[in-house]
Amino acid sequence: MQDTPEHDDILLSDLDASGILRLTLNDTRRRNALSEAMLARLDAAFAKAGADAGVRVVVLAGHGPAFCAGHDLKELTAGRAAPDGGRAYFARIMAQCSGVMQGIVNCPKPVIAEVTGIATAAGCQLVASCDLAIAATTAQFSTPGVHIGLFCSTPMVALSRNVSSKHAMEMLLTGDMTSAARAAEIGLVNRVVAPEALHAATLDMARKIASKSSMTLATGKRAFYEQREMALAAAYDHASAVMVDNMLAHDAEEGIGAFIAKRAPQWHDR
Amino acid sequence: MQDTPEHDDILLSDLDASGILRLTLNDTRRRNALSEAMLARLDAAFAKAGADAGVRVVVLAGHGPAFCAGHDLKELTAGRAAPDGGRAYFARIMAQCSGVMQGIVNCPKPVIAEVTGIATAAGCQLVASCDLAIAATTAQFSTPGVHIGLFCSTPMVALSRNVSSKHAMEMLLTGDMTSAARAAEIGLVNRVVAPEALHAATLDMARKIASKSSMTLATGKRAFYEQREMALAAAYDHASAVMVDNMLAHDAEEGIGAFIAKRAPQWHDR
Amino acid sequence: MQDTPEHDDILLSDLDASGILRLTLNDTRRRNALSEAMLARLDAAFAKAGADAGVRVVVLAGHGPAFCAGHDLKELTAGRAAPDGGRAYFARIMAQCSGVMQGIVNCPKPVIAEVTGIATAAGCQLVASCDLAIAATTAQFSTPGVHIGLFCSTPMVALSRNVSSKHAMEMLLTGDMTSAARAAEIGLVNRVVAPEALHAATLDMARKIASKSSMTLATGKRAFYEQREMALAAAYDHASAVMVDNMLAHDAEEGIGAFIAKRAPQWHDR
Repeated sequence: MQDTPEHDDILLSDLDASGILRLTLNDTRRRNALSEAMLARLDAAFAKAGADAGVRVVVLAGHGPAFCAGHDLKELTAGRAAPDGGRAYFARIMAQCSGVMQGIVNCPKPVIAEVTGIATAAGCQLVASCDLAIAATTAQFSTPGVHIGLFCSTPMVALSRNVSSKHAMEMLLTGDMTSAARAAEIGLVNRVVAPEALHAATLDMARKIASKSSMTLATGKRAFYEQREMALAAAYDHASAVMVDNMLAHDAEEGIGAFIAKRAPQWHDR
Repeated sequence: MQDTPEHDDILLSDLDASGILRLTLNDTRRRNALSEAMLARLDAAFAKAGADAGVRVVVLAGHGPAFCAGHDLKELTAGRAAPDGGRAYFARIMAQCSGVMQGIVNCPKPVIAEVTGIATAAGCQLVASCDLAIAATTAQFSTPGVHIGLFCSTPMVALSRNVSSKHAMEMLLTGDMTSAARAAEIGLVNRVVAPEALHAATLDMARKIASKSSMTLATGKRAFYEQREMALAAAYDHASAVMVDNMLAHDAEEGIGAFIAKRAPQWHDR
Repeated sequence: MQDTPEHDDILLSDLDASGILRLTLNDTRRRNALSEAMLARLDAAFAKAGADAGVRVVVLAGHGPAFCAGHDLKELTAGRAAPDGGRAYFARIMAQCSGVMQGIVNCPKPVIAEVTGIATAAGCQLVASCDLAIAATTAQFSTPGVHIGLFCSTPMVALSRNVSSKHAMEMLLTGDMTSAARAAEIGLVNRVVAPEALHAATLDMARKIASKSSMTLATGKRAFYEQREMALAAAYDHASAVMVDNMLAHDAEEGIGAFIAKRAPQWHDR
């Protein structure tokens, strides 16, 4: 299943033996911008990762000083040349981008952002859309659309589901950079490590998660985002039904049996 | 109203003169697991506390090194022997457990978790379901179902209504232990104190709350969880109606009158 | 557009040359209470600010040791003399107050609370309702209604949309004062500065925001509060539509063009 990395490819894909798929944004000339081409590649990559039983967890990283600079503004601007001033094109791009972000949320595999550099606008949204995120002390985050007259309205959908209102609003209304340390304080990333420790930190977290039952991870991740949007009683009804099905699946019977017998579990897909 | 504590009882109940009901999980052999018997006792205890005018606030504590280890896995496993593989049994247990958790939320008396030890899976959910929680530095929290193939889907309903998404997902996807200090940082508990100071800290908070009008506490607690699930305008309409009724109740008239006259209020039920 | 400040006026209004409207609660004898008169003035001031193209951002401050002490309890108590015991009057006041709070949320201009002193009950709600808040180390926050038999049910609508459940419940159930530092930790305010640095800090933030396109700020602020109440997919659909319209507006074309050309943007209304 392992792709051959092509070093002039804008999205590198590398699957290791433990089922960790490393996707690396690699369009450094454009600061890993979410161009149409990049969005299409990400969409396909997460769809493929979701369907591939060999992928147990995804790490999303970026080459170069920018993790991701958001939309490609030159590409967007070129779209204005259309007879409708770009309306249809912009609508298509926004739908494509929102599709990629929701594709991460809906991907049955856990996704960890590994952030070394600057994550701005839709790049910040990408981090917010991942299930987990670890940042280097060199990482910085912002939603700077307000500087250019284009409020980061789609990024804020993900941002406001990660951090509290006042913190989200400060980033959105000022466009200021948020340091990695502050991003950890407000809940945008799980933790911050030294740049030289970043790869090991994500790998450690990814391996830990990759050792679990993929069925269980998929069940739980899906239920997490579903129940979050429900009222409490409905959320409990839904999660209870999920638990019952989970109990009846092989991996729970195996996992619980192994725990009681004090032996290592043998997951169905391992 | 005070129960006679029986020291071999799995749930001790002790009501003091100031209306503080102390419920203590006391099945230390099973690490205070939420067995069927324990769930039934908790359900009854919170129902009774809710209906008892002598109870002003509830403290939920646990004897031994584990606050609560979650479901009783041996009991669950035994349920698999049924002709349907346990489906009906699991559904009943999940409904019973979700009922206990919602019973805490719906109990008209404020509930404070006092956590000395390990709170895992549904034990962590128990802490998250309480209105307030104070932990000793010795407390630890986790949602480790992912280790045994059974994602903590019902615990995450409560967890994700206490802490931000990335923090909840880290606990759920890794199953790692969260220290008491980290639990306070992410909002799972209100504060952390030294083990020897824990009892005094919860008692201090409980006494403070017990000195208030029970009618007012019940009105406010109910409205809190109701309005939280509403859109802003609907939440304001609802809370405004609650305020009007509250204004017209004896204890608000008395409390406001006492405040203006600079005297101590005399609540209706005191 | 600048109002003439009248120093015996209960709400001072001062618009500077950069479009920063400073509204100052100035009823120090009543600790800046939200009397009927004050609520009417605030309602009108935010409506006027919203409609006035010369206003780019609003700072809400308070003279004296209290930022705002919440409702005027003597006024509320006088309302009990009505034949219905005050029910109609209380309903009117609660609707008026909730209208002011939602007027801040719905105001198209960003609103920054500048808090030097004590913000209690509906005064704390006022801070929570602003988009941003900066506090002096001398500021303190509480929802003390529980002390007087009247739970802070309407304040909690705003409070619980700013801070996590356990933190909100601690304030609501105990009525205890929260320090400025703790308010920053839990997300009720954006940051805390020394009292002598407060004015400069809000002015700096206000100027930064005032330099942005008012159209963009209004678009984004509105979309923020709208999308927050939607499920994820609906939020993305809505925010995407907002982005498309925003792209087609003059200020985005100008802002993006200026960014690409590395020149300063010229907003439509500047």
